[in-house]
Amino acid sequence: METTHSQIAEQYAKRARHAARSLRVAPAPVREKAILAIAEALETRSAEIELANASDLEAAVQSGLSSAMVDRLRLDGKRIASMAKGLRDIASQTDPLGRVLEEHTRADGLRLAKVAVPLGVVFFIYESRPNVTTDAAGLCLRSGNAIILRGGKEAIHSNRLLGSLISDAVEGAGLARECVQLVAETDRALVTELLHRSTEIDLVIPRGGEGLIRAVTAESRIPVIKHYKGICHAYVQGSADIERATAIVHNSKTQRPGVCNALETLLLDRSLSIEGGRKILQALQTAGVELRGDRESRERWPDLVTVEATDEDWDTEYLELILSVRVVDGLDQALDHIADHGSGHTETILSSDQADIERFLASCDSSSVMANASTRFADGGEYGLGAEIGISTDKLHARGPMGAADLCTYKWVVRGTGHVRS
Amino acid sequence: METTHSQIAEQYAKRARHAARSLRVAPAPVREKAILAIAEALETRSAEIELANASDLEAAVQSGLSSAMVDRLRLDGKRIASMAKGLRDIASQTDPLGRVLEEHTRADGLRLAKVAVPLGVVFFIYESRPNVTTDAAGLCLRSGNAIILRGGKEAIHSNRLLGSLISDAVEGAGLARECVQLVAETDRALVTELLHRSTEIDLVIPRGGEGLIRAVTAESRIPVIKHYKGICHAYVQGSADIERATAIVHNSKTQRPGVCNALETLLLDRSLSIEGGRKILQALQTAGVELRGDRESRERWPDLVTVEATDEDWDTEYLELILSVRVVDGLDQALDHIADHGSGHTETILSSDQADIERFLASCDSSSVMANASTRFADGGEYGLGAEIGISTDKLHARGPMGAADLCTYKWVVRGTGHVRS
Repeated sequence: METTHSQIAEQYAKRARHAARSLRVAPAPVREKAILAIAEALETRSAEIELANASDLEAAVQSGLSSAMVDRLRLDGKRIASMAKGLRDIASQTDPLGRVLEEHTRADGLRLAKVAVPLGVVFFIYESRPNVTTDAAGLCLRSGNAIILRGGKEAIHSNRLLGSLISDAVEGAGLARECVQLVAETDRALVTELLHRSTEIDLVIPRGGEGLIRAVTAESRIPVIKHYKGICHAYVQGSADIERATAIVHNSKTQRPGVCNALETLLLDRSLSIEGGRKILQALQTAGVELRGDRESRERWPDLVTVEATDEDWDTEYLELILSVRVVDGLDQALDHIADHGSGHTETILSSDQADIERFLASCDSSSVMANASTRFADGGEYGLGAEIGISTDKLHARGPMGAADLCTYKWVVRGTGHVRS
Repeated sequence: METTHSQIAEQYAKRARHAARSLRVAPAPVREKAILAIAEALETRSAEIELANASDLEAAVQSGLSSAMVDRLRLDGKRIASMAKGLRDIASQTDPLGRVLEEHTRADGLRLAKVAVPLGVVFFIYESRPNVTTDAAGLCLRSGNAIILRGGKEAIHSNRLLGSLISDAVEGAGLARECVQLVAETDRALVTELLHRSTEIDLVIPRGGEGLIRAVTAESRIPVIKHYKGICHAYVQGSADIERATAIVHNSKTQRPGVCNALETLLLDRSLSIEGGRKILQALQTAGVELRGDRESRERWPDLVTVEATDEDWDTEYLELILSVRVVDGLDQALDHIADHGSGHTETILSSDQADIERFLASCDSSSVMANASTRFADGGEYGLGAEIGISTDKLHARGPMGAADLCTYKWVVRGTGHVRS
């Protein structure tokens, strides 16, 4: 059995490597044609997709998945149309390949250029939502990478159909169908074997819960770009415009509490007035947010900060309507708190003190640092990157939202006329 | 004992992390002052350095190290002056921090900038040559990173002195002395413990033999940028200018055979004339290069290609005056050979067929691809990057020669005036 998984993994990996060799030199219009062909196939075969999806939904209901999870799995006409639109947006993006990142001609006439090229083969492991399947395929075609897709077993019927539809479309556009391969098997052992194929696979991107990501990272012999969690902070100074601060904190926490760029900890400066703090906290309480505070915040706003925060709270990504609240004594204590408890995702300062704002923006070592803006803006779409394959909380290679350009590496192209080194 | 190593590693790592927090925001002039202060200390304490180095040399001779290795260890007045010059060059480089990589203001007035920032803490593990100690310290100060230096035990006396001299200079310039820490202990177990400190250390760079690099990669829980080997290829077409091709192949192989960008395999196109090939191979033979060939090359040039190449030869980095030679049937077979046997370092095509040159440059998936130039140009200095901390054969983050700018990551800086997401 072990041998079989190893052999199947080898086949997936070698087919991908082989496809990547021709994909690397495929012109932009051919890659765009392939992406658009997937979009078209989604629309023309929409009824078929909904039928396959119905099998997943039925299994999900029977296995007792929460209704929220079942809803994430669902593909209806509207969602399929939105997947097609996502692909068309990707096809219309500027091609990330061939960008000249640096260029110069030496005094001896040797011409040097640092040029963006594909990574090669990406292994993408994700959970649940089947729309991610087409997004990931589109972004990899855009960036000239072959991709091996491994979705969650809850979505296996939908994904198998999407996988074959994508490969058909890619082939129809004149590329190797193995540019996009969906792993049809659901065995975990196969994933492990694929994570060992560092000769053929260049990058692993796991997208899902922290457990999935830690398991992939522990097992992989291939570089992994990962996203553990977002413990985002807002730090409110006494000089902040209270109306704006209230709106920003409220938006950061409640606009979509279940996502990684939602606010998890509110740091209120001691210089903030009791009335100012009350206004901010009141808006949160009204929105149904449970406020867990340190001693000082509970003393200052006893009717609002009603739950005592434990040590664990400062390191918790709630992903629901709970917020930890702490009173801090100045910017340095806020920076210390973020350095000790942050996850390097997104932090925002609400202040009108320009010197403190600049110091906060320079000192916070997070992928997004903001002033007087909602943490919810930390997103590839909002930043203008187009669709994103994920958000990296790593610092190597890519940090923050990752678009098609982040799936590229570069090479040095050197043109001589008989140049030798002396 | 295990506990002790673990505790010592924790201390090194935490001190580095702490130092990195202030170094990250240290202005360029302060970092430059620190680099220049090291250069000055090298010169004023040159006699002391030579004395410490003498202990290493003595131990090296006694332990029977080859005279080439002993020579690599040696620090004399000239080499110390060259280390100081290297530092002054680094201090005069454009600061890599704060570079704005992308920037735009949204229609709603939200301002976005993607800005270069330090990685944080670098753990640099290297062998033998003590001059690497000051280069690495200089590049990390230039890029605002704290560094933990772990040199080879052959150079421990030299390195301990250099380490304390560097820390003194850094402190004298107004930075924390722990911005640069040299690991004074020679225990391997301590290295292993440091490789597990992913909370404090952001990047590991091993520089040395393949054994060292594989051991570090296997043990590390921190991202590693590595350089395994350089199996560089030259592919000569029939259309090549034979004079130039002869000079380039000769230069690529013999100018400095022991380095990673030296030529290891020569692919001669079947269209190349017997006389053309003879001229190229004759120059190599005259320079004392042993030519190991496939059947066809031995048949074509029996007096020059005198040794039969085995399967293993195509995957061997000789690092000496040996070259494998193969006759290939056209560009595609050359590309296949390189894809199967190359290490992704550097390949060059010698040709006057512009279409083939372009196809070669586009299709070869190596960090440097060249036309009509010597592979020996694949080097940070030659590319104008200044001093390099190493050469990466990885594709993630940095590829090819790595300078100070490659020790940076970036962050998104977002400036609003009360912006919330709708």
